[in-house]
Amino acid sequence: MINVPRGTEDILPEQTKKWQYVERKLQELGKAYNYQEIRTPIFERTELFQRGVGDTTDIVQKEMYTFNDRGGRSLTLRPEGTASVVRSYVENKMHGSPQQPTKLFYFGPMFRYERPQKGRMRQFVQFGIEALGSADPAIDAEVMAFALDCYKTLGLKSLKLVINSLGDMESRTNHRNALIEHFTPHKEELCKDCQNRLEKNPLRVLDCKVDRNHPAMKTAPSIMDYLNDDSRNYFDQVKMYLEQMGIDFDVDPNLVRGLDYYNHTAFEIMSDAEGFGAITTLSGGGRYNGLVEELGGPETPGIGFALSIERLLLALEAEDISLPFDESIDCYVVAMGDEAKKEAVKLLYNLRKQGLKTDMDYMDKKMKAQFKAADRLKARYVIVMGENELNEGKVALKNMETGEQSDQSLDQVVSYLKEAVQGGTGND
Amino acid sequence: MINVPRGTEDILPEQTKKWQYVERKLQELGKAYNYQEIRTPIFERTELFQRGVGDTTDIVQKEMYTFNDRGGRSLTLRPEGTASVVRSYVENKMHGSPQQPTKLFYFGPMFRYERPQKGRMRQFVQFGIEALGSADPAIDAEVMAFALDCYKTLGLKSLKLVINSLGDMESRTNHRNALIEHFTPHKEELCKDCQNRLEKNPLRVLDCKVDRNHPAMKTAPSIMDYLNDDSRNYFDQVKMYLEQMGIDFDVDPNLVRGLDYYNHTAFEIMSDAEGFGAITTLSGGGRYNGLVEELGGPETPGIGFALSIERLLLALEAEDISLPFDESIDCYVVAMGDEAKKEAVKLLYNLRKQGLKTDMDYMDKKMKAQFKAADRLKARYVIVMGENELNEGKVALKNMETGEQSDQSLDQVVSYLKEAVQGGTGND
Repeated sequence: MINVPRGTEDILPEQTKKWQYVERKLQELGKAYNYQEIRTPIFERTELFQRGVGDTTDIVQKEMYTFNDRGGRSLTLRPEGTASVVRSYVENKMHGSPQQPTKLFYFGPMFRYERPQKGRMRQFVQFGIEALGSADPAIDAEVMAFALDCYKTLGLKSLKLVINSLGDMESRTNHRNALIEHFTPHKEELCKDCQNRLEKNPLRVLDCKVDRNHPAMKTAPSIMDYLNDDSRNYFDQVKMYLEQMGIDFDVDPNLVRGLDYYNHTAFEIMSDAEGFGAITTLSGGGRYNGLVEELGGPETPGIGFALSIERLLLALEAEDISLPFDESIDCYVVAMGDEAKKEAVKLLYNLRKQGLKTDMDYMDKKMKAQFKAADRLKARYVIVMGENELNEGKVALKNMETGEQSDQSLDQVVSYLKEAVQGGTGND
Repeated sequence: MINVPRGTEDILPEQTKKWQYVERKLQELGKAYNYQEIRTPIFERTELFQRGVGDTTDIVQKEMYTFNDRGGRSLTLRPEGTASVVRSYVENKMHGSPQQPTKLFYFGPMFRYERPQKGRMRQFVQFGIEALGSADPAIDAEVMAFALDCYKTLGLKSLKLVINSLGDMESRTNHRNALIEHFTPHKEELCKDCQNRLEKNPLRVLDCKVDRNHPAMKTAPSIMDYLNDDSRNYFDQVKMYLEQMGIDFDVDPNLVRGLDYYNHTAFEIMSDAEGFGAITTLSGGGRYNGLVEELGGPETPGIGFALSIERLLLALEAEDISLPFDESIDCYVVAMGDEAKKEAVKLLYNLRKQGLKTDMDYMDKKMKAQFKAADRLKARYVIVMGENELNEGKVALKNMETGEQSDQSLDQVVSYLKEAVQGGTGND
């Protein structure tokens, strides 16, 4: 037997119903916020992520699925969505469209070679949005409101929005220098990775999972002390708009995010649902002015966020929320004998053409077992086709909720059922 | 600038609307036919496709994206969907479920390293179904009806169903031997690939693109002359059920399909729409009794089909069918001045919470340009927020279809618009 590859999983029918429901809700939210879908390829040229995610990140250094195709090109399964969307924005010159900012959402699998654990698989699905072209603090607030609504629209309640500002280039540079100065005396005590990236990207040290308890972490200089007036003013505006919307948030100056390209606003959505045991990060995002330029486009501000669907589903479990979806079928057709079966195949086809969810037996089952299958499928109606009734052009129709049974003409049972199930308003 | 990888493409917002529409329709069809969604990983262990697609196929020999992960496992981006679904069926012991056959559908990207051309990209998206556990000819007819309905439900008309029987093991073996005998005298005249696979799998020779005009092709023994009674009877039943449903079909004894695992029923859906120039294969499928066993499961019959969404969209173009979807937004909020903008951000959020598709300006535009943006987005309503009106707790509401303008209280404009747009029946 061949198994599913390590760190990946099949999503089976009981689960896919939840996925479909969540996807539909997120698509509706995309519409309400006027974001439009973009779909980029599963793999990209490796260089894109080296430049667009950042050479010093764990993702690029350790976690990418990189390989050569048969033509010798180095390709990488996308580890996140922003770099691809920005690549497409530049390649398709979306900055030239009159409608700005360009507001996009995406939905699809991402790949990171990590130690598999619950909520952290090697293949996982992200939903994310990007707003490119606006440096208005109001759109930072819009993106955070959207991020929260992804959870609220599904009924989640134990949510916390945590925000920070990483400042503009000047503020970042000053903070960066202060961090290098602060950590250099402790360099030998830090992990290998941190030693290597201390000069290149000291922010990464703050985010390190290995060194998180080193005493120098607590006394590290805070970005808040290095924000220049522009950065502070921008951050104040973002907070003001969130307050206008009545959205609660905490400010955490240590919030850094795992990607190199963030500046100004960074945020995370956390859950403190009891089911999780501890506070858990559900998703995050931030502003990335400069990334479009880095990937060959004109100077363009941008902001976005991404969430993992797997963690969203874990959050639903943690809050014990069950999604509402209909698992019943409309009708099951029971046929007795070969001649009846021929008619049943035809009737089934006609019911389905009307959009009615219908099925019949393909296992050569006796009548009693066919009724059992109808029960298992939660059929609302059963049509029984026997040869005697068919000779008179009739079938027996049973309403499985009420137990009511009636004879119907074979010619009219489709329209009768359509009316009964869809009330005449269904799709045809 | 970094480009999209060769043979792949971005699907941009004007296109994704079509994709969303098609997906929703196919999902609805899945429900009507009582198939349930399964999602398998993007990559699988390479061995799965070697065994499940077949060592002698072009796919396995030339077209797979195969690579080692960081743990040294050989992985392959899935070139098709059936092997993965069957792997999951076996691994998750779906054959043990009381509800049989197991009826599954899938939707997602597949990968084949081919020369890119229109309708044949290296990454393409397939929708497919599999019915596992039934050897009833009526389910062969169901799968073909489903396949046709995928196109019909979108309005396509120039469709042709072509079917064939490849027979059971005995019939196939006899036909196979006849083919080897027939082609062996011409072996040196055939292409390298055909020479190599003539003994292993002579059916592949019939399907060869290089040798298609060799005179021995025309005189090759037909499977029709080698079907034993069981196989012939099975095929007759399949045709009978199709006739019952009123579905037209042609029988083509040369229809072979590109995968090794087919037996009994094989079929293709073709389009003869003028827009294509020539007759084009849109999709295909067939029966694969034996594949479940090959992949480590119990002896289980199975049948399925898959279609490429890209080709389906080309077929819509070829028949000049435009899909109906709404591109308008419900409301655009125009704000004049900083104070009005604060209120606008809040109002926008409240409109969106009601599921209303709404947007505002984030580019610091003047009022006239904001109205222009509202037009571009086909907004049905515009709300104008000026500081004077706001001091009185009012906003101006303009119906962009009728040109009608009215003052509304800021407190009530959300419920007013909700009623106007959704007629009280929308989602909230």
